[in-house]
Parts: sequence; structure tokens; C-alpha cells
Amino acid sequence: MNIIDIIEKKKHSKELSESEIKYLVEEYVKGNIHDYQMSALLMAIYFNKLSIDETYFLTKSMVESGEIIKLDKVSGIKVDKHSTGGVGDSVTLVLGPLMASVGLVFAKMSGRGLGHTGGTLDKLESIPGFNISLTDEEFIHNLNESNIAVIGQTADIVPADKLLYALRDATATVDNVSLISSSILSKKLALANDALVLDVKVGKGAFMKDVESATELSNLMVSLGKKFNRKTKAIITNMNEPLGKAIGNSLEIIEAIDTLRGEGPKDLEEIAVVIGSKLMHMGGKTNNEEEAKNILRENLKNGKAIEKFKEMVKLQGGDVSYIDNTDKFKLSNIKREIFAKDSGYVKEIDALEIGIASRDLGAGRLSKEDTLDLGAGILLNKKIGDHVDEGELLATIYTNKKDVVEDICSRIQKAYVFDDHKKDYKLILKEID
Amino acid sequence: MNIIDIIEKKKHSKELSESEIKYLVEEYVKGNIHDYQMSALLMAIYFNKLSIDETYFLTKSMVESGEIIKLDKVSGIKVDKHSTGGVGDSVTLVLGPLMASVGLVFAKMSGRGLGHTGGTLDKLESIPGFNISLTDEEFIHNLNESNIAVIGQTADIVPADKLLYALRDATATVDNVSLISSSILSKKLALANDALVLDVKVGKGAFMKDVESATELSNLMVSLGKKFNRKTKAIITNMNEPLGKAIGNSLEIIEAIDTLRGEGPKDLEEIAVVIGSKLMHMGGKTNNEEEAKNILRENLKNGKAIEKFKEMVKLQGGDVSYIDNTDKFKLSNIKREIFAKDSGYVKEIDALEIGIASRDLGAGRLSKEDTLDLGAGILLNKKIGDHVDEGELLATIYTNKKDVVEDICSRIQKAYVFDDHKKDYKLILKEID
Repeated sequence: MNIIDIIEKKKHSKELSESEIKYLVEEYVKGNIHDYQMSALLMAIYFNKLSIDETYFLTKSMVESGEIIKLDKVSGIKVDKHSTGGVGDSVTLVLGPLMASVGLVFAKMSGRGLGHTGGTLDKLESIPGFNISLTDEEFIHNLNESNIAVIGQTADIVPADKLLYALRDATATVDNVSLISSSILSKKLALANDALVLDVKVGKGAFMKDVESATELSNLMVSLGKKFNRKTKAIITNMNEPLGKAIGNSLEIIEAIDTLRGEGPKDLEEIAVVIGSKLMHMGGKTNNEEEAKNILRENLKNGKAIEKFKEMVKLQGGDVSYIDNTDKFKLSNIKREIFAKDSGYVKEIDALEIGIASRDLGAGRLSKEDTLDLGAGILLNKKIGDHVDEGELLATIYTNKKDVVEDICSRIQKAYVFDDHKKDYKLILKEID
Repeated sequence: MNIIDIIEKKKHSKELSESEIKYLVEEYVKGNIHDYQMSALLMAIYFNKLSIDETYFLTKSMVESGEIIKLDKVSGIKVDKHSTGGVGDSVTLVLGPLMASVGLVFAKMSGRGLGHTGGTLDKLESIPGFNISLTDEEFIHNLNESNIAVIGQTADIVPADKLLYALRDATATVDNVSLISSSILSKKLALANDALVLDVKVGKGAFMKDVESATELSNLMVSLGKKFNRKTKAIITNMNEPLGKAIGNSLEIIEAIDTLRGEGPKDLEEIAVVIGSKLMHMGGKTNNEEEAKNILRENLKNGKAIEKFKEMVKLQGGDVSYIDNTDKFKLSNIKREIFAKDSGYVKEIDALEIGIASRDLGAGRLSKEDTLDLGAGILLNKKIGDHVDEGELLATIYTNKKDVVEDICSRIQKAYVFDDHKKDYKLILKEID
């Protein structure tokens, strides 16, 4: 077996065998297959695609390229979610405690933010003392203790994905459903949960730009998940405006805390409840999703959800007083309010533009090495469907970067599009079982 | 401008601009574009192709990536030829002196053999003392002195091609007409000749397997050559049996000397005369090709051609006594004759198999670092259309590798295919102006 023959085969649209794919991934991780050979193959895959079997074998080989965290020692049904990345997406922070509050185990490996999308780990680190680097033992201990733990991905998990992702990013070979699916699912499968709901975002602020391509990706990931005997469902959600009203690390933590107290923005709560209801039903906690939704909404009001969040923060070393009093979160020094220059109904808030603006305020990274200003970000005062009068507050920004303020205010101003009529905004576009 | 955007553009089948292609080649040679990015682009080019303009700009940028040898100081019309590589192809050795004998300048940069195809430089080095590493000054001096010089490609000529070719070879991205054309023509264009005839080989022993793909390649190269204001024509010739009867370095030099004396195999002479007649006509030496053919055939008989060969050998430091007496060439120690086991007409002689056999006898290289046995090779006693009786001599092999003899005898035996009826063998399949 050799890499040139394998490239040649895919170039001529022939199906690769399990052993060829295993060889590819293993030898690439060992460094015996060069980056320039793998990138040529990735481009051939872009053009000729992978079958579902090939994608399955690729995902399997990727999972097997690294450590697999078993959860046998954790009692209960373990559930997981994944978002393809959006702006203001703090669903994990709300969903996790909700799941723990209904007796499901939320064992989550999360990532950091990059570009215009935020990351759960960065948000959690806004809480002083919060430790995302637990040992496997601590992780399992915390899960048994309180049904919830959120950690960073260790270097030993799916090393093939780290190499492949960096290579795809540098060679314009990111946009292939099989490569995207194998990247996402390999990391999910390396942690032995029982059920998974994928939140595939669509719109300007998302990687997937239309419902059609999001559906293709969702269908493939759900099929693949099932092939691996993981209960898997997906929802396709709208990212034509940011989710919730907060964008930025401390701001989103505060918003998640509000939501866990039943006082958060309705769109953020809705997605957390819908995903949660699916996981509850898949985990055998209810007979249907509607019943589950009622329980979850109840737990946001009765304090059970926020209590679980506090348990997690405490177990992971975070300062719980910040949860009790969110005024303690230190936001960036410069605060500027942006007022409407027109009046009308908000028709759209360019989520990509808002994500980039938030990043430029200091809340996000351009490259992996950038450090974050956890107190920076944007608070939206108006969302799609809201009526705005000229001069009314549209949004507030927080930053420590004086130079960027004027430019960003005008960019946010432009991100708001107005119309004479109220427009409906459909949040959940599709559900895929 | 950045490489990822350029890859993305080609991925979506958009035409690259001159400045984008120039950037690509320049930055790649400088090492600012990584191999893994270039190979992804090459694969995208394989799928989406390059337009003639893109191919022109690529070729131009490749030529400009290195030194260009000007021939202003050489008086006369300078002509050149290129073969896409065959088995037993010593046309250059016959054509060069022929051109010099009619007052055209044959300024040639040649290559070494690799795989199953031989190289002019290796063949010339069979002549003791022959020096293929002339300085630019010596090269120009020799051309003015005797109208002919054959040298090796220096490291400074088209560095982009050296890098790209090695990368294509390792990433299964060799087989694209634009990439092949730019590779061949860039090296031809780096030497400022006036006219060029391309000999595109087709058949088992050649890179192009059918006339259709050879025609596509020929048309593209002829168009490109003209865009660069070089008079360019092509012929497509049959490589379903080796050219001439000799395969191996000393053996082919002896055969070329015989041909230059009018006593060589007809197929070798024919191709040299056809290419030569085109160059003479393009160089304004005759009114048509037929007239040129007559002059060339005459010069093979009257001693003018062999005289030019001897002049070249002398000017490049070679021992001319070998040309006067070819018995002086030392062939390998082991000589073995192969006799026919069947009788009939020769229908085919698998040129690829013969080329590989010759390589394995010591006449060729598997990798660039291999050293050659210049006295090794194969002499074919029968060619397509010849009648053979059982027990008659088919071929003779020369080698210093005792171990391989038996195996190679049986492979050569199998390379001969017989038929009851005499088969016509068309040597020149197409001429492209």
C-alpha cells in the first residue's frame, strides 16, 4: 500500500477500502505520509467526495489515532451536544446544568473560540479560578459527584484531527461534508457518551450558509453517529442574528446565569430546551419531547438548573460568589452606547459582522496564540422583530482598545438592517432524527 | 494576494490572473508557499484544468524563475527538438549533427535517463572524455565553431520546474496537459532558440498511451510555443516497439554513429529526417519539407553528418577515435543471445517491458542517485513486421549483473508477440503545425 496509489485511486473516484483509510490516518500521524501528499488527497476528496462507508472508516481511524475516554465508571446516561459554531452561542452553559438537573450526565469536552465564534472554555475561564484542565480521574469524579463537568480537549484526543484540521485550513480543503463530519464526530466519539444532539447553525454568522448544505451535513452526521451506535439527532438553527443578546466571554457567562435563573433571552433558552428535550427523551427520561420541555422550563424557574451550575463551578475551582452576584464580573474599561439613526423594525443583525466586531474589541482571537480580553464584547439591546425609534439604544460595546471604538460603532450600526414591517424570525429551522 | 484564496479560486474553476500565477511561482520558489499548499492547488488544477492563458502565464513565470541562456552571440538560426521520452530513442544524436551539417545551429540542453527511458547525456558520456558541463561561454563558443553543442541542464535553469516536478511526482498530479506542457516548454524557452519540433511519443513505452491525449498535448504545446514567438511544430510517433534496434547507452551511441553514416535502422533515420526537414523549412533553409528531406538523406550518405558529430565530440573533449572505430566501445562482460521459441511475424515488441529490462540490466536508473553501466543494454535483431523462424536470434543482451540474466531473457522473450500475418507499423502517426 502506498500513498501515491491511494491519491490516484481517489483522483479517479474509486472507493477507498477500510485498510487503505486506516493506513492513511496511521501513517500520516506517524509522519510517514507528507503534508503535501495528504493535501493533494484532501483536494481529490473535495472533488470526488467520500462515500458514507469511507467517511465512517475515516472517522473510526481518526478516533483510534488517540486516547478514548471511557465513562464506564460514571453511573447514569451520558449526554453530549455539539454546535458547529455561532455568534453569542452559549447554549452549552445553559444546557449542561439543565441536563444535570434532570439526572442525566453532561460530560463535555469543549473548545476555545477562533475567528468570529466564541468558545465555551474561554467563557468559563471568565469565572476566576475555573479550571478546565481536569485529569481523567477528576473528570470522572466530578461527573459522579454532580452529573456535570466541562473540560478542554487534551492533546491525546484525536491527534489526526488536529493535524488534518490545520492542513485543511491552510489548503482551502475545509468545505467537504465528509471531512467536516469526521472532524466533528471523531472528537465526540473519543468521549464515550450515550446520546448526542448536533446544533448545526445556518446563516451569515455560521459556517453553513444555507439550509440545504446544513441538511446534507446534519443527515450525514446523524447517520454516522448511528453507525457508531451513538444515539444521534440534529437540529438546524438560524444564525442570521447572534444568539441571545450578549457576545463576549464574561457577558455570555452573565447571560447564561440569567438564563439558568429563567431570566435570559428567549432564543437562547429555546435552543437549550429543545436540545435538552431531545436528550431527555433519547436518554429515556420522558416519553416524549414535550413532556421533557416542561420539566426543563420548570427547572430554569425553580432554581435546580442554576444550582447545578454552581455545583460545577465549585467542583472545578471557580469562585461561586460571581454566580450569586454577576456584578462582580469585571467588564472592559471603555463602555460605549450605540444609538439608532433610523427607526423601524429590525429585519436582520449581521451575525458575522457582530462576531468580527466582538473579536476586534478583544473578545476573540485572530490566531490561536492571541490572548483574550474576557471583559470585552457587545450587548445587543434590540433583536430581529423589535421596533426601534431613531435615537433609541441599539447596543453597548465594552473594550480596552481605544483605537477601534469609532470604527466598530459604525460597523455595528451597519450590521442592523431595518424594515417597515415586523419580520418573523424562525429560530429552529429543521429537526433531523 | 494569498495562496489560500488562489487555491479557493481554482477549486471553484475560476481563471487565475497573470499576477496571481506570477505570485504563485515566485513565492513557491522562495519557499513562502508551502509544498502542501502547492500540491492542493495542483490537484485542483488536475480537476478544473488551466486555460491556455493560465498555462501561458504559468510557463512564463516558470521560465522567469531562473536563468535564461541568450544566444544573441551565436550567428545563424538556432533549432531545438524535444522528445517526451521513449525506449531506444537516440534521435537527438542523429538530428543534431544533421542540423549542423545544413548550416542550422543545434543548441541543445538535454537530460539524463530515468526509469525505462534513456537520456542523451548518459549516452554521450559513453564516449570517453565527453564533457556535458560546458560554461555558457564554452557553449556559445562551440556553437559558433561547429553549429552544435549538447549540454546538461544547469541548476539555474527553471528552478520552479525542478520543485514542481518532484512535487507532482509525489502527489499523483503529473497527468495534466497544462502542467506537462509548462514543464517541457519552460525548459525549452529558457534557451533562446528560434524553432522547435516536439516529438510526442505514444504507446506502451511512452507516457502518453493514446493518440487522442498525445494530440491534445501536442496542440497545446504548439499553441503555447507560438504564443512565445517560437516557431513550433509537433509530430506524434509510435512507441509500440523501441525505436531503432539498440537500447542502452554505448549501444545507442554506436547505432547513432551508424545512422549518421547512413547505415542505421530505418525508423530512427526516418524520425530524425522528418524532424530535421521541419526545422530546415521553419529555419528558412528550404521551400518545403520534401526538399529538406532529400538534403538530409544525402548528408547521411556523403559523410557531412558524421563529420559534424565528430566535430562536436572533439570540441566537448571526447575521444574521436571511438567514433571512427565503434569496436572500441566496451560493452558489458556478459553477453547472452535470445532465440525465438515460435515462428511468425513480429506483431509487437512491448517497449515498456524492453525499457524496464534494459534498466534492470544496468543501463538505466530506478532513482536519480543510481549509477549506470554504460555498456549494458539490449540489441534487437527482429522488429515489428519481420518474419522469425523458431530458433532464430531475437535479441542480444549485455550486462554485468549475472543474477538478472535468466529472468530478463524470459521477459524479453515474452515482450515479443507474434502473428501469422505481417502487420504494418505506422511510425509517424500525426504531424501538428
